[in-house]
Formats: sequence, structure tokens, C-alpha cells
Amino acid sequence: MDEISINVLDKPKLRNPVLIEGLPGIGLVGKLAADHILDELSAVKLAELHSHSLPPQVMIADDGTVNLVGMNFYYVKGGKHDLILLVGDFQGITPDSQYRLTERIIEFVKDFKVKRIYTLGGLGTGNLTKTPRVFGAATSKDLIKEHKKYKIIFKGGGAILGASGLLLGIGMQHGIDGVCLMGETHGQIIDAKSAEAILEVLTKILDLKIDMKALAEKAKETEAQMMRLSQMITQNQEAQEQQKKYLSEPPTYIR
Amino acid sequence: MDEISINVLDKPKLRNPVLIEGLPGIGLVGKLAADHILDELSAVKLAELHSHSLPPQVMIADDGTVNLVGMNFYYVKGGKHDLILLVGDFQGITPDSQYRLTERIIEFVKDFKVKRIYTLGGLGTGNLTKTPRVFGAATSKDLIKEHKKYKIIFKGGGAILGASGLLLGIGMQHGIDGVCLMGETHGQIIDAKSAEAILEVLTKILDLKIDMKALAEKAKETEAQMMRLSQMITQNQEAQEQQKKYLSEPPTYIR
Amino acid sequence: MDEISINVLDKPKLRNPVLIEGLPGIGLVGKLAADHILDELSAVKLAELHSHSLPPQVMIADDGTVNLVGMNFYYVKGGKHDLILLVGDFQGITPDSQYRLTERIIEFVKDFKVKRIYTLGGLGTGNLTKTPRVFGAATSKDLIKEHKKYKIIFKGGGAILGASGLLLGIGMQHGIDGVCLMGETHGQIIDAKSAEAILEVLTKILDLKIDMKALAEKAKETEAQMMRLSQMITQNQEAQEQQKKYLSEPPTYIR
Amino acid sequence: MDEISINVLDKPKLRNPVLIEGLPGIGLVGKLAADHILDELSAVKLAELHSHSLPPQVMIADDGTVNLVGMNFYYVKGGKHDLILLVGDFQGITPDSQYRLTERIIEFVKDFKVKRIYTLGGLGTGNLTKTPRVFGAATSKDLIKEHKKYKIIFKGGGAILGASGLLLGIGMQHGIDGVCLMGETHGQIIDAKSAEAILEVLTKILDLKIDMKALAEKAKETEAQMMRLSQMITQNQEAQEQQKKYLSEPPTYIR
Repeated sequence: MDEISINVLDKPKLRNPVLIEGLPGIGLVGKLAADHILDELSAVKLAELHSHSLPPQVMIADDGTVNLVGMNFYYVKGGKHDLILLVGDFQGITPDSQYRLTERIIEFVKDFKVKRIYTLGGLGTGNLTKTPRVFGAATSKDLIKEHKKYKIIFKGGGAILGASGLLLGIGMQHGIDGVCLMGETHGQIIDAKSAEAILEVLTKILDLKIDMKALAEKAKETEAQMMRLSQMITQNQEAQEQQKKYLSEPPTYIR
Repeated sequence: MDEISINVLDKPKLRNPVLIEGLPGIGLVGKLAADHILDELSAVKLAELHSHSLPPQVMIADDGTVNLVGMNFYYVKGGKHDLILLVGDFQGITPDSQYRLTERIIEFVKDFKVKRIYTLGGLGTGNLTKTPRVFGAATSKDLIKEHKKYKIIFKGGGAILGASGLLLGIGMQHGIDGVCLMGETHGQIIDAKSAEAILEVLTKILDLKIDMKALAEKAKETEAQMMRLSQMITQNQEAQEQQKKYLSEPPTYIR
Repeated sequence: MDEISINVLDKPKLRNPVLIEGLPGIGLVGKLAADHILDELSAVKLAELHSHSLPPQVMIADDGTVNLVGMNFYYVKGGKHDLILLVGDFQGITPDSQYRLTERIIEFVKDFKVKRIYTLGGLGTGNLTKTPRVFGAATSKDLIKEHKKYKIIFKGGGAILGASGLLLGIGMQHGIDGVCLMGETHGQIIDAKSAEAILEVLTKILDLKIDMKALAEKAKETEAQMMRLSQMITQNQEAQEQQKKYLSEPPTYIR
Repeated sequence: MDEISINVLDKPKLRNPVLIEGLPGIGLVGKLAADHILDELSAVKLAELHSHSLPPQVMIADDGTVNLVGMNFYYVKGGKHDLILLVGDFQGITPDSQYRLTERIIEFVKDFKVKRIYTLGGLGTGNLTKTPRVFGAATSKDLIKEHKKYKIIFKGGGAILGASGLLLGIGMQHGIDGVCLMGETHGQIIDAKSAEAILEVLTKILDLKIDMKALAEKAKETEAQMMRLSQMITQNQEAQEQQKKYLSEPPTYIR
């Protein structure tokens, strides 16, 4: 396996495809939104990406079988644009791997003649709000003009970290347009409301029809599940800390 | 020396060999179990692995001689399956090195036509229990079906970190079956009881006969030794912290 | 994109050019000074450097468009020496990348036959002073002799960290003279006074005319902006910490 | 400059040379001892090693000139064995670079047909003692036997971290004998007494004559200097922490 490997599972012909990125980030806003599109539009798996820069682990599925951690590409055919969805449980774990993964992803979607990317994320404000706003940033002034009618707030300043930012920045170098949609969110909760806000904008832009009912339920489920898991993680972290005393440190250090 | 180098010491012909991994992890469960097989079945050293991704140090043996830190392969001939054991004091110290080490290990054991891997570990629960259960995860549904008769609990969810997980995940990519056996354990103690529980299952699966008496004693010894060493480590850590003030920081910083 | 890539935007002929480095460091002294030269002398953009060793993010400009994080080269023609300015928002984020970036920068400016480098920085003392002194270090005794008339204090001891140091150390290996000018500064404030002090020395050395009025204002602006941003960062950091519980750690760890 | 580069300054013919390593470690014991040999025996500089894995900085000499951080090789001719000394202000800053640096050092000294290495360090005990003992570890039982007459205590257990350990471990792979001498030391003080203890043993082994008077003074000097510098470092660290708020974190994070 190379440092980054993509296992292509299908070879669909896609019409005017756009890439939608929804990897984990603040409030899980982008991930919730992209995972919801995936489910509601019955997306088909296109490819799996594995990398030495993802956490060194396998995930255990509900039936007890294991899968190597990865990012997944899905596609949806038949709308105004065909869609490629990029989803996963993790982003690259080192800064330089974020660059290398992004470059590899751009290279992969260029084969499908992707000319536009929408990256989805959350903008943490520390405040709770019932009607989260949607902020935006884009790779050109023309794109901003084109998107203003969707009530996206393009205010300058700040930075976009990780895949949501780099896919725009490196996409630009390859002549690909990019828009980042960021849902206003508290930052410390998994925010289905904020995911719904960006989905409402995105579905208008791409002329998609998506039922939002399941989203809130999914977020509740996710949250409950995360709570339980969080406890187990804390226990395991304590265990690992304890372990380190014995293991990652040798018996007696002499230098 | 390459970034990962394997020094092969013996060239045995092995019959239907399975790989058993017992590197350090939670509760030292996997390590205790694999080291016990090693001793009880008088395993023969097959190869030493050294790597730039293991801690940069030598271990001092009882007689005062030093050995470069490494992982070791041993073999046992004559059972239903011949065995290759993978043991050591450390796992790779960076996430990407975990991938590279695992790939190199898979490549090495493929030369012996290994078609199945058992990885051994602990599942930290934060609870003390007298009769630790054995949990499992596997690379296919068929494998799970095959192993259910051994009272292994295959419940979904969670992740398997490090060599115990990656050997399954990367093994799959090479057509190698894999099962991870995880002994229920508190997480903050070195747990011979849990190691015994997974050994009882593993010996049934592989039709091995292993006396368990020495295991508990060995764990006690290990624990006492670890306690003493832990004190020395704390002292040395404090010393190193102190040192850093002088050394890893230059006299006056200007930027 | 290579690990380090330089996108050349202009091919000016430069006469006896000197490189002036003003990347971020203590008190932002060097950055404030170099950015001020840039503005006051209407410098022209020469090239953009991008690197896998800069933070993985895009910056959002005032108009809502994004730019990949980078270092920028500018030039100024027509003085005693033509100038190449090296500015940016970040230094390389790993120690080894600091070396590789510096080597690439040296290689780039050698094409313009740069024979001298001035690096600008702050010397943190923990004290507030109204009349900050300017300290210096240089690549040879002759250079020190040459610069003593400018009231630069060359006292030995200490170290120069990051680009301001390495450009001298690696420049030497390529036969390039180098002087580091360090403005006395508290260390915990953005210090326009200290930037002014080094600019007063540097303008005398290079026979430049630069109005200082805008500098103090710019520093005030920068400080106000930083304050606001600092709050947002803190919020986002808390959000990210929270996020890590869910994301960078998998649901249940088993090893 | 390569990732590791050695600039050879002299090409002496050395007779039965042994390598003596005295890089920084616990109590600065090894460094103090090796630096003292350097001064007392008027060693001649043989080569400079620079590396991307040393801190990215230049040191400012007493006269205000700068030097890129490095390790230095010196030689001494005319004794029972000619000596090569390896000294410096830093060790490699990442675990894997410790391996790569050690391999490069071994390769370099093999050109001089070095067949034996003495590495010098401290063994931190947390206790103050007036008559520090000297502990040892070696690459073979024969070496231990050979050295027992020098009152070195060879007790098993523990580990030797960093260059002092790896030079033995990797040296072994190249057929080079190695002994590590470790002076008993508290761990939190710069310990000239402990350095003297290992020098007394080493001078007997190698039949050297070295005056110890200057050692204690040098250690006092070093300690005073370190104290003052330590204060400056603390100030600068605080300044850097403060800086990070502004710099290593971008204004607003969105993911």
C-alpha cells in the first residue's frame, strides 16, 4: 500500500460533476450535512482512500467485522449536476499530510472533470442560536457574486483550516472553482440545526430535493452514541496514560 | 540499516503457519499472553526487526550487555498449525510508522505462506472482574461464524488501534484472514487474568497445550519490576525536564 | 505542487540586491518592520512560496476570496541597493522544514545574485522600554566592524531561532553575508516602537527614506484586530478540543 | 545542504583510534567530561556535522558572529589510542533522526578504522552523593570482563537512551565494540563530580593524563551561566507562548 492509495470501485460517467466535501470538523456540521445527502440520495460508492496519515486503526462494524480507516468517495447521478461526495471519520493527522491528501483528492476528481467544489463546515462562535446563519468564502469574486442570492454571508477575515480550506486553495491552482459553506454553530455540540442550514442553501444552489426529517434524528443518535463512546474513550485514555509509564518509557533512562 | 530492517536468523519450513501478535497494549494483555506461549512452547528465534520508528535506545540485559530495541519473530513447530510469534517491548512510535511496520511484517510472514493472523490485546473497561470475557473482531463474517463456538463475544462498534488492528486491516488487502482476541481488562493494571482468558480461547482454537501456572507468577514479577522501574522513570523524567531547560532550549531565543 | 513550490510572478533585473527578511517572531518586530517597508516603498510582488510545511489552511481576504497560506517575495528598485523583501504570516511549522524552507529561499535569491541578507527580529527581555536598543549578530567580524557605526549592540551569547537565524547560518555556506537586527522588546506585546528602532538603523544602512507615522497606527490596528481574533481563536480552540473527543479519538480503543 | 552533512576540516592519520561521545544528557555528565578532555588535551577540530534534525538556529559567539548549530568531531594524537571526540550542544530532536545521525556518525568514524566506542552519560538516581559510582554497559561479555578491573559496576536492567545508547547498538551491527560509562548523578544538577568520576575511569582505561582542577571550575561557570540563561529562556518562552496566540493560530478557524 502506498502512502496514499485509492481503490476505485466503480467507473461511472458523470455529467458536470461537482465535489462536495464533508469531512469531520467543528460541530460535525459538514460531516452531518454530507452524510445526510449520502443517505437521502442513495449515493453509490465510487472509491476508498487509505493513507498512512490517517489514524493507524481499524473500525469494528456492527457485525463484528473490521475495516481499515479511510475516506470514501460516493456519487449521485441525475440532477442538474452529478455529485461526488467525499466523506469519512477522520482528516489527515499531520499538517503536511493534509496537503498531500488534498492534492491526491484533487487529482482523483479531475479525472471526472470536476470544475467546482463545495466544502462544508462549521463556524464556531461560542453562541447558541436557533436560526444559524450560513457564511461563505470562495475562490473568486465572480463566484461570490453568483452565490449572493442564496443568502450566504461573505464577510472577509479569518482562515479555513484543513480539507475544507485546502480543497479550495489547491483546487484554485488546478483551475477548479470552490466555495466553502460554513454553518454558524456553538462549536462544542454536534449541530444538526447548523447542518440543516447549509443543506438548505446547498440544495437550492444545486437544485436538489432532500428531506430534512431524518437529519435531526440522526444527529440525536450520533450525539447519544458519542456520549457513550466518549466515556469509554476517557477510560481508555486513562488506561493508555497508565500504560505509557510502563511501555513508551523504558525501564531506566541513561543518556 | 534501512528505516525498517529484518535480520533473518533461521529458515525453517513451516506447515500452515499462523501469525500470533502480542505487542504491548492495554493491560499488557496481548504481550503477557504471547510471551507466555513463547516460554511454554520453547519457541525458536526466527528474526529480529529493527526500525527508526522504535524508541532510539538500547536495552541493558541482566548480564550488562546491550541490545538495540526491536521486535522479534519466533516460531513453534509441530502443532495443528506451526506458529510464528511476533513480540517486543514497543510498537512504532508514530502513526505512519505503525502502517509501515505492519506492511513490512505482513510482507515478511507472507514468505512463510501465513494465511491467518491472530492479534491479541486488551479491552479496557475501567472495571475489575474475576472472570474476564473475551471479545473478538474479524476480517469476515465466515471467520466470525467459525469462531463463535469458542465463546468469543463479537459485538460491533469501536476501533482496534495499532498493530492488533492494522495487521487485520492490511492483512485483508493481502488476502490474509485475521481475528483479534481482546481480553476484558481494567486498563490500569497489568492483567494476567485477562491474558489467561484469551490464552484459554486461543489454545482451544489452535489445539495447543499450555500450562497457565507460570503466567500468574510472571505477571506478578512483571508488576513488581514495573513498579520499581516506574519510580526510577519518574525520577529520570524529572531530571530530563530539568535538563530541557538547559539543553533543548538554547541560551537566549531571538526570532 | 511540490513540498515547497515558488511561483515566480515577475522577472526584474535587480542591482546589488539585498534580501530583507521579516517573518513573524517575538513581538512581531521583524514582521511589522518589513511590512512597513513593503507599504511605504510600494514594493512589487516578485513570487509566492507555498509549502506543505506551512499551516494547512487558506486565509479569507476582506472581499471573501481565499488565498492559500504562503510566504511572499517583493522587490523595490532604485535605491543604493535594490531590495528583495521576504514576508508572510507564518514560518515553517516543523524544525526540519525551517531548514528546507531556508535552503530553498537562499537558492531562489541567489538567482538574483543577492550577496547580503538582513534578517529582522525581536529580542525579548520581559521589560518595557521607551527607547528600545537594537542588538545585532553577523556572519563575520568584518561585517560587525562595518555596522558598529549604526549604534547596533553586538554582544555575544544566545541564539537566533528560525528563519532569522538560519538565513544567516545557511547563507554563510553559500558565501552570502548576513546581519540580524534585533529590536529590544518586552516579548508579550506587538511592538511598533521596537520595529521603528530597527527600521531607523536599517534605513541608515541602506540609505532609504521611510515615513514612520503610519507604522504606529498600523501596529495599533494590528493589535486591535489581533485582540478580537484572539477571542475567536480561544473559542475555536475550545471547540476543537471538544471535537477531538469525538473525532481524533475513535469510539473505543483496543490494543 | 543534505539532511545530514559532514564538513571534513582535516585528514589526520589516526592510530587505533577510539571514539568518545559526550553529547548533552542527564546532569550534562557526558558533555562536561568530553568537553574537558577536549580542552585539556588540546584537541584539533576534525569535522563539523550539520543536520535538519538539530534545532533550527544559529548560536551567537562571544564576538557577535553566528554559527549554525552542529555537532563537532575533534581528534587527539599520541596516546595509547588516538582519540576522536564527538561533542555538541544538542542531540537529534526526533527519535528517527537519532537513528539516522548515529548511522552517519558510525559511517564517518569507520573511515578512520575506529574499532571501539566509549559513550559517556549520567545515571539519574534522584540522590545527592559525594562519591558518585560509575556504572557500565557494553556490547559483549568479553568487554565487560575486560573493564571490571576499573571498578565499573555492570548491573543489568534499564535502557540507554539517545546517542550514548544507539552508538553501541548500531556500532555492534558494524562490528564495533562499545562501552557506555555512566556517572551516578542526581539528575537535576549539572554534575562536575560525576563527570570527574567517569573521567577517572576513562583516563585509566585509555592511559591518559588529565588535570581535573579546571573541571570543577568549568562546571561552576557553566552552572552560573545556565542559571542566568535559564531566566532569559523562561522570559522568552512566555513571550513565545504569547506569540503563538497571534501567529501559529490563524485569526479565525473554520473547518
